[in-house]
Amino acid sequence: MSAPSRPEPNYFGAGPALLPTNVLEEAAADLLNYQSLGVGVGEMSHRSSQATDIINETKENFNKILNIPDTHEVFFAQGGGTGGFAAVVYNMLASFAQKTGKKGKVDYFITGAWSQKASEEAERLGADVNIVADARKFNNGKYGVIPAKSEWKFSDPSETAYVYYCDNETVAGVEFAEVPEVPEGVELVADMSSNILSKELDVSKFGLIFGGAQKNIGIAGVSFYVIKKSLLDRLPQKEANALGIQVCPIFLDFPSIVKNNSAYNTVSILCIHIINLVLKNLLAKGGLSAQESLSKRKAQKVYSILDQNPALFNLPVDKSARSNMNIVFTINGEGNEEKFLKGSSARGLSGLKGHRSVGGIRVSNYNAVTEESIDKLIEFVKDFIKEASV
Amino acid sequence: MSAPSRPEPNYFGAGPALLPTNVLEEAAADLLNYQSLGVGVGEMSHRSSQATDIINETKENFNKILNIPDTHEVFFAQGGGTGGFAAVVYNMLASFAQKTGKKGKVDYFITGAWSQKASEEAERLGADVNIVADARKFNNGKYGVIPAKSEWKFSDPSETAYVYYCDNETVAGVEFAEVPEVPEGVELVADMSSNILSKELDVSKFGLIFGGAQKNIGIAGVSFYVIKKSLLDRLPQKEANALGIQVCPIFLDFPSIVKNNSAYNTVSILCIHIINLVLKNLLAKGGLSAQESLSKRKAQKVYSILDQNPALFNLPVDKSARSNMNIVFTINGEGNEEKFLKGSSARGLSGLKGHRSVGGIRVSNYNAVTEESIDKLIEFVKDFIKEASV
Repeated sequence: MSAPSRPEPNYFGAGPALLPTNVLEEAAADLLNYQSLGVGVGEMSHRSSQATDIINETKENFNKILNIPDTHEVFFAQGGGTGGFAAVVYNMLASFAQKTGKKGKVDYFITGAWSQKASEEAERLGADVNIVADARKFNNGKYGVIPAKSEWKFSDPSETAYVYYCDNETVAGVEFAEVPEVPEGVELVADMSSNILSKELDVSKFGLIFGGAQKNIGIAGVSFYVIKKSLLDRLPQKEANALGIQVCPIFLDFPSIVKNNSAYNTVSILCIHIINLVLKNLLAKGGLSAQESLSKRKAQKVYSILDQNPALFNLPVDKSARSNMNIVFTINGEGNEEKFLKGSSARGLSGLKGHRSVGGIRVSNYNAVTEESIDKLIEFVKDFIKEASV
Repeated sequence: MSAPSRPEPNYFGAGPALLPTNVLEEAAADLLNYQSLGVGVGEMSHRSSQATDIINETKENFNKILNIPDTHEVFFAQGGGTGGFAAVVYNMLASFAQKTGKKGKVDYFITGAWSQKASEEAERLGADVNIVADARKFNNGKYGVIPAKSEWKFSDPSETAYVYYCDNETVAGVEFAEVPEVPEGVELVADMSSNILSKELDVSKFGLIFGGAQKNIGIAGVSFYVIKKSLLDRLPQKEANALGIQVCPIFLDFPSIVKNNSAYNTVSILCIHIINLVLKNLLAKGGLSAQESLSKRKAQKVYSILDQNPALFNLPVDKSARSNMNIVFTINGEGNEEKFLKGSSARGLSGLKGHRSVGGIRVSNYNAVTEESIDKLIEFVKDFIKEASV
């Protein structure tokens, strides 16, 4: 039995994103026959000993790679990032209510499309939403900056269930350079769907980190959560509901999921196994310290060549807020963007079209995008510049 | 590039369940390189033209195989069957409220662990639950029958948002022989997680059919829904909430999902692609008419050998309610069940242990379990009987 393989792709899609070829080779073989059991990893009971081993090993590797303290717990659920937007509201409000007897306010940073959607979901679910800062107010109505700290307007800390932000915005290409400082005692919630595992992280700063898996860490069909264990102590749903908190569907109820080791309902063991393969692959390559250097170096190469040609390339994001994961730009000169996409495609470089809502070009620089791919792109950009300036 | 393969498994696990080897071979190859694009089916944008083609083709094949009328629509979502329990409540109550201005009552048949869980989720979410019939009341406190029609107690039809039942209960091994008749004008909702595609179905009888994919139709990570289109007309969530209906998280909001062709948020294109491969495989083998004959014949072979040896085997389920998908029994004589499991395992027959809550033996007879596997099992059972009666 030999696993399928492929030539190394040069693919810069924004997500679902590239995964390392060796990870997919192993996953493909395991889809047919896992550990010589005779059946595949997608066909085993999620409560079998093999599945439990996969879940436990994935959690251990998650703990190891992110250096997660004992105060925090890793778990997996369904619903993706968008499911997470809702899960955050239900669960964090009920935790705060357990501690204070109150519903609590929720504070949202809005720095791009994803944090905007998350705040809208909180509103839909009846949360009392305060916007800490909306980046558009400080950048002519467009995303592209992280508002200055002096502009942040938090709610009264004693009333605040949590502060929410999206660490990396894939559409706008905006990333927080540092974890935002929040008022003492207030829980911080981060959507890290698109930059988890790209850099080192002090998990102790967070009440909750979550994300859909389909960027740096796996494929769609599962979400990851890292929660401060004390937040699992929450008001029972009936009492929480009496305070105006919506009832959480049971499959997104954090305490139920954790109590059942992520197998309250049928979580995808294939998806968790792929996360584990990604984590093992990254640990073997030096973990997050090595990855952070690599991510920054790759991104810097792209930003650098673009910055050197300001007559041709427009980079809408403020330098202090530039994402290492999603590099967005537009190209001056009629027809130049089409020429760029066509030319890059002819060289086997794909997935470069900007998000439909903003247009232009987007270079996604996730973990599985190799430095060789970035170098090939740079070579193309150099040739493009020569031709464009003729 | 050659896909991995495997010897044909003889696996009777209850789910996540076996899939056809040729389906997994194709999926494994596509995980690395889909249609020679150079990237895999799990790495493509869920809004790419390739992903849209996969979703559309899967819907078409779903329509074809189940002969779904124009009045109904197929879509895919996250959350599994348990997510579906909640999604049903939110969406069906809001549809009924749109039609009547009222919250409505919900009627549940309880015939096993899954319909019981579904009714509990409806209760949690504040629905006004009426139990049409609880099978345990008619079978000494245990599941194992479908209550007689004369015992069914429906709510007033003008007040009823929907009647819910689980067509096949995997733990108890109970299956409805016929679609239950409900009062004129009341919408019928069916959980068909574990027996979809095992038999022909008159979809026009249903308001909604749903299920997790990981039995007959795919792998965990996606759920399927077939909804009567008129039910997509629902009261806006704020007005619905004012009537006491909980707000649906946006990623489970049926109208939003359908409007976005199942790609409102990042649905797993790999999981949908596997559904499509399963559907194509089944269509090539004669569709549901052929599958129904095969399913019944396979199940009958097992029930028959067990029925012939009543001193040894106890079949707790009433003959009229026997499942063609999950055949449950216990074995008389101390140590005989262990002997059965050990002996079958030695012959390469696996996944036969009963659910932890009921014990005994469970033979799951899903579509991907071949008649050859069933025949091997029968041969083992015959030898087991000989030895046991010595």
